[in-house]
Amino acid sequence: MLEELKRSVCKANLDLVKHGLVVMTWGNVSGIDRARGLVAIKPSGVSYDAMTDGDMVVVDMDGKVVEGSLKPSSDLPTHLELYRAWDEIGSVVHTHSLHATAFAQAYRGIRCFGTTHADHFYGDVPCTRELTQQEVEEEYERNTGKAIVERFKTLKPLEMPAVLAANHGPFTWGKDAESAVCNAVALEAVAQMALASLTLKPTLQPISNYVLDKHFMRKHGPEAYYGQNKT
Amino acid sequence: MLEELKRSVCKANLDLVKHGLVVMTWGNVSGIDRARGLVAIKPSGVSYDAMTDGDMVVVDMDGKVVEGSLKPSSDLPTHLELYRAWDEIGSVVHTHSLHATAFAQAYRGIRCFGTTHADHFYGDVPCTRELTQQEVEEEYERNTGKAIVERFKTLKPLEMPAVLAANHGPFTWGKDAESAVCNAVALEAVAQMALASLTLKPTLQPISNYVLDKHFMRKHGPEAYYGQNKT
Amino acid sequence: MLEELKRSVCKANLDLVKHGLVVMTWGNVSGIDRARGLVAIKPSGVSYDAMTDGDMVVVDMDGKVVEGSLKPSSDLPTHLELYRAWDEIGSVVHTHSLHATAFAQAYRGIRCFGTTHADHFYGDVPCTRELTQQEVEEEYERNTGKAIVERFKTLKPLEMPAVLAANHGPFTWGKDAESAVCNAVALEAVAQMALASLTLKPTLQPISNYVLDKHFMRKHGPEAYYGQNKT
Amino acid sequence: MLEELKRSVCKANLDLVKHGLVVMTWGNVSGIDRARGLVAIKPSGVSYDAMTDGDMVVVDMDGKVVEGSLKPSSDLPTHLELYRAWDEIGSVVHTHSLHATAFAQAYRGIRCFGTTHADHFYGDVPCTRELTQQEVEEEYERNTGKAIVERFKTLKPLEMPAVLAANHGPFTWGKDAESAVCNAVALEAVAQMALASLTLKPTLQPISNYVLDKHFMRKHGPEAYYGQNKT
Repeated sequence: MLEELKRSVCKANLDLVKHGLVVMTWGNVSGIDRARGLVAIKPSGVSYDAMTDGDMVVVDMDGKVVEGSLKPSSDLPTHLELYRAWDEIGSVVHTHSLHATAFAQAYRGIRCFGTTHADHFYGDVPCTRELTQQEVEEEYERNTGKAIVERFKTLKPLEMPAVLAANHGPFTWGKDAESAVCNAVALEAVAQMALASLTLKPTLQPISNYVLDKHFMRKHGPEAYYGQNKT
Repeated sequence: MLEELKRSVCKANLDLVKHGLVVMTWGNVSGIDRARGLVAIKPSGVSYDAMTDGDMVVVDMDGKVVEGSLKPSSDLPTHLELYRAWDEIGSVVHTHSLHATAFAQAYRGIRCFGTTHADHFYGDVPCTRELTQQEVEEEYERNTGKAIVERFKTLKPLEMPAVLAANHGPFTWGKDAESAVCNAVALEAVAQMALASLTLKPTLQPISNYVLDKHFMRKHGPEAYYGQNKT
Repeated sequence: MLEELKRSVCKANLDLVKHGLVVMTWGNVSGIDRARGLVAIKPSGVSYDAMTDGDMVVVDMDGKVVEGSLKPSSDLPTHLELYRAWDEIGSVVHTHSLHATAFAQAYRGIRCFGTTHADHFYGDVPCTRELTQQEVEEEYERNTGKAIVERFKTLKPLEMPAVLAANHGPFTWGKDAESAVCNAVALEAVAQMALASLTLKPTLQPISNYVLDKHFMRKHGPEAYYGQNKT
Repeated sequence: MLEELKRSVCKANLDLVKHGLVVMTWGNVSGIDRARGLVAIKPSGVSYDAMTDGDMVVVDMDGKVVEGSLKPSSDLPTHLELYRAWDEIGSVVHTHSLHATAFAQAYRGIRCFGTTHADHFYGDVPCTRELTQQEVEEEYERNTGKAIVERFKTLKPLEMPAVLAANHGPFTWGKDAESAVCNAVALEAVAQMALASLTLKPTLQPISNYVLDKHFMRKHGPEAYYGQNKT
């Protein structure tokens, strides 16, 4: 079942490796079939070398395995929380990519220092608050998702398809697995450039709103003119 | 038409990937046929994996597509502005290479800290001013080109074949696509080394003019003696 | 003899290269057969290009070569000291991976700044004291091992499977060669992220104990639920 | 003529690329046949992609081409100056490897911060003084060599097989091309680690002499016990 979804989720997991975002098994991608209420996700702690579409685990919205012989990624409850909160997303990606994680470890969001950032993220990429002891000890992964959703109270997930989970690392998402991976790649590049820019100028301020608007909208707005998309 | 130009432009786009200057689709190369007044450029937002010569889009000097089924790169108006201003250039390259972009985001040019720099760029690589809100909202890409040309009032494009567009990223150029790519590669290396040198010595000053003259001229002057070029 | 051990030790040495932890021949892995009291280790200063299982040198616990025509790694006495002190480890890895070594050179341990760290190392990765002149001049490699063991008086080797030898570089270990290499890979990634986080926030403090406990235990505790391990 | 020397020099040039030390054509290796007083060196500005043994240019000690249809590297006079001054060296390597060059641009030598450094370089890697205007304008490349030799008045070339030419980049050497390349690789790694260590601790001091002695001598002294060398 869900062959096409499993195929795209498996490919997305392998693309994370191809883009250098994953060390060993530190990453996972899931995708959702909204009509059936089912999610396909990478199995937990499995090597990427021989991963196939059939290894993807299918679960329902309570995290119960519906298909697959392997255990799902331990981060599954975080993914489910995001799917529950945001109808408009179709895929979630989690990595420990080095520079984005460095910002998460420093409890800093990534401010919008340039047009590369603005092409993908409509403003500063936020960092969540730290979880409380109780949140960590009870339903840790689910509470990670809840803290992300809480942080997005005034943000739109498809305009800001990335977050840094404090002292943990980045989550990104998108309409589908391909765009969620694209956002993970962009986030890591943007983090690396922001670190270098801050080294050159520690007091650097974000770009003006009119540049941000221009760049985000030329790629994502109703009058987007970047790429080959037909309207 | 313009088969040779399209071939060299396509190869140059792929060389950007080979040299590690391009993340996803963040880069574009164009080349001009001065006799016919036509420009070949990468299509917008297309993956490099299967790109062929035939995908290059041919446009006239007003940006009107003359040949090709795809949309040209959205940065085309910037390229055209440079071709209009500078008769001596034959190709333009735009990337978001990480270290050069980090300088652009910090609104800093790259000072000439060594002979690697002097071998390719005759002095400090300049950064443009920020665009005004009006410039961004009306003809943004064209105004990006105009701000570059404005910044070069006292500079010669073939002596300084690179610029940092403020809060955006680098543009380079050259007599042909191969040399424009070469300058993009050199710029990124020079940016990375400058960042490291500034980390070691934040007050570092540029090299003396006599070292700059020596290195630039041994590669580019009328009595150049680097390489296999016959005079 | 010890064919399986030699195979896993050879593979582990090659995996160090695959993970980018080794420049030239700067690294070595050994594994121990506790029942026979024999250790298999990489030969000294031999290129990785043509290394085969049969090149691994088998020595006894006094370092005497029992099998193999090549000299064992000069770091062998360090490995032996760790095997003697800690019954629970089955393999030792030594590298000069760039970021972990940078911390060792600065005489700094790597504090636990995030969950990537906590997934592998139960607290701050320690740095040894410097060796005295006498310790360096007499049995240098063995004393390197002794200083590591001394530093671990209050630490459990399988909870903290890594150390930085002051002004030298990292040693890691594990139940077997595969996990020892995994810890070397994790250590280098964690070191690179810690350096970047400290650049962003020089006064950064380690994560709270409840996050550390949660992450280490979900992977390594008796109730671990990460990966496909069956209990 | 000199087939074996040309083969080893060509291989060494290609090894620089393999080790990531060369951007485009920024590097060159030469080797000397002391008996005949002839030097084989990379041709100037030629791409590495199709380089063969036969492209190596053979020159005499005055730099006159004895064999080969291409022009020798423009840095040849620097190489010759080193061969003339130091009988014990058999090969010279020049690169613009990024981190070593960053130190050269900052006019800083690389202090000996750890055993990786001490394994290859017996003390701090020195940086030359800047050349005067006259030295640059008259016989620039030869004077670069002279400034290196001047800096080595109290140093032994095979104990310190590397130098940073101020605002230019590194030169290394060795008994043969293989060891000269090895020193170039070590120098770049050591430079990268030193930069990171200095970021962690700006006031970091070099290691003690007894650690330096131990490490250099275990690899290079008369009683060296690293590697498979038989004595």
